[in-house]
Amino acid sequence: MRPGRRRSEESRRAILAAAYELLGEAGYARLTVEGIAARAGTGKQTLYRWWPGKADVLLEAVTAHARQHIPLPDTGDHAADLHGFLAATFAAATPPTTDALRALMAEAQIDPAFGERFHRTLLTPRREALGVLTARAHAAGALAPQLTPTAAVDLAFGLLWYRLLATGDPLDDRLAELLTRTLLR
Amino acid sequence: MRPGRRRSEESRRAILAAAYELLGEAGYARLTVEGIAARAGTGKQTLYRWWPGKADVLLEAVTAHARQHIPLPDTGDHAADLHGFLAATFAAATPPTTDALRALMAEAQIDPAFGERFHRTLLTPRREALGVLTARAHAAGALAPQLTPTAAVDLAFGLLWYRLLATGDPLDDRLAELLTRTLLR
Repeated sequence: MRPGRRRSEESRRAILAAAYELLGEAGYARLTVEGIAARAGTGKQTLYRWWPGKADVLLEAVTAHARQHIPLPDTGDHAADLHGFLAATFAAATPPTTDALRALMAEAQIDPAFGERFHRTLLTPRREALGVLTARAHAAGALAPQLTPTAAVDLAFGLLWYRLLATGDPLDDRLAELLTRTLLR
Repeated sequence: MRPGRRRSEESRRAILAAAYELLGEAGYARLTVEGIAARAGTGKQTLYRWWPGKADVLLEAVTAHARQHIPLPDTGDHAADLHGFLAATFAAATPPTTDALRALMAEAQIDPAFGERFHRTLLTPRREALGVLTARAHAAGALAPQLTPTAAVDLAFGLLWYRLLATGDPLDDRLAELLTRTLLR
């Protein structure tokens, strides 16, 4: 990697880390591009070179967090695989990630262009990952008979998002277990 | 009812109807208190006498819509009652109600004080209504054995909100059927 390229990567990573830190400290409403750049030790222009605004910085930070913490198991045991994926998904949903997710879903309702990026970058890849597991269970006859692989994905992520956005109730291992039993036969 | 009281009621109803109409025509971002008042043939001050802003006008309009269109059946047949409630809930979720719901859920994430009113006025009463049905099914041993009445409510409203906010996929009778079979034993 050339030195200029390496410096760029360092700035990018510093900005992503700064956005996450500041979100945890101040909340989304008080998060600003200026504040993120200052914390990262870069200028606003550097941030704007890569992202249109604060929502897109957080979107990349959250997507990287999900990719890093949620493996896609393949043990041959459908219940164990599905439970493992859901438990890891729920375990990754702690503050400030939960604050970011709520802010991004809200922003996606208000700004359709951002909504499109939110789908492409986060929602669709997460749906595809879980969809691999529900399709595999379906092919083996292990999915609940009234469900399609897509309906199973909707039920799982529906429960996750509803607890994040509406009830604030915990996303824990017991819930992953309940959901696994609901989706499988 | 005294004439002044009756005129007030007429203004209130005109404002609620105007907010819903304009939402359908222009979308939430372009909806303004000024525009709602003008369409209703009242002044801004009249609107502000009853509501803090446009989100609260829509909240009342949507809540009245839900109360009017979603009965709470009690036929003694748990599957028929649950299916009836869910099918009516989904049938009531058409534009511009869906636009209002998406905007209100977004607003609730951004403005915690509004979020509290959103819970008290819409989310909690809807959860309580469905909770009557899931508790009744549970008491009769008809709920899926891994679910609690509350978890069943979360799965149903989770699916509804996730389709509204994230996928935009249809909320139809087939989905109400799939959900009923998933929640009951």
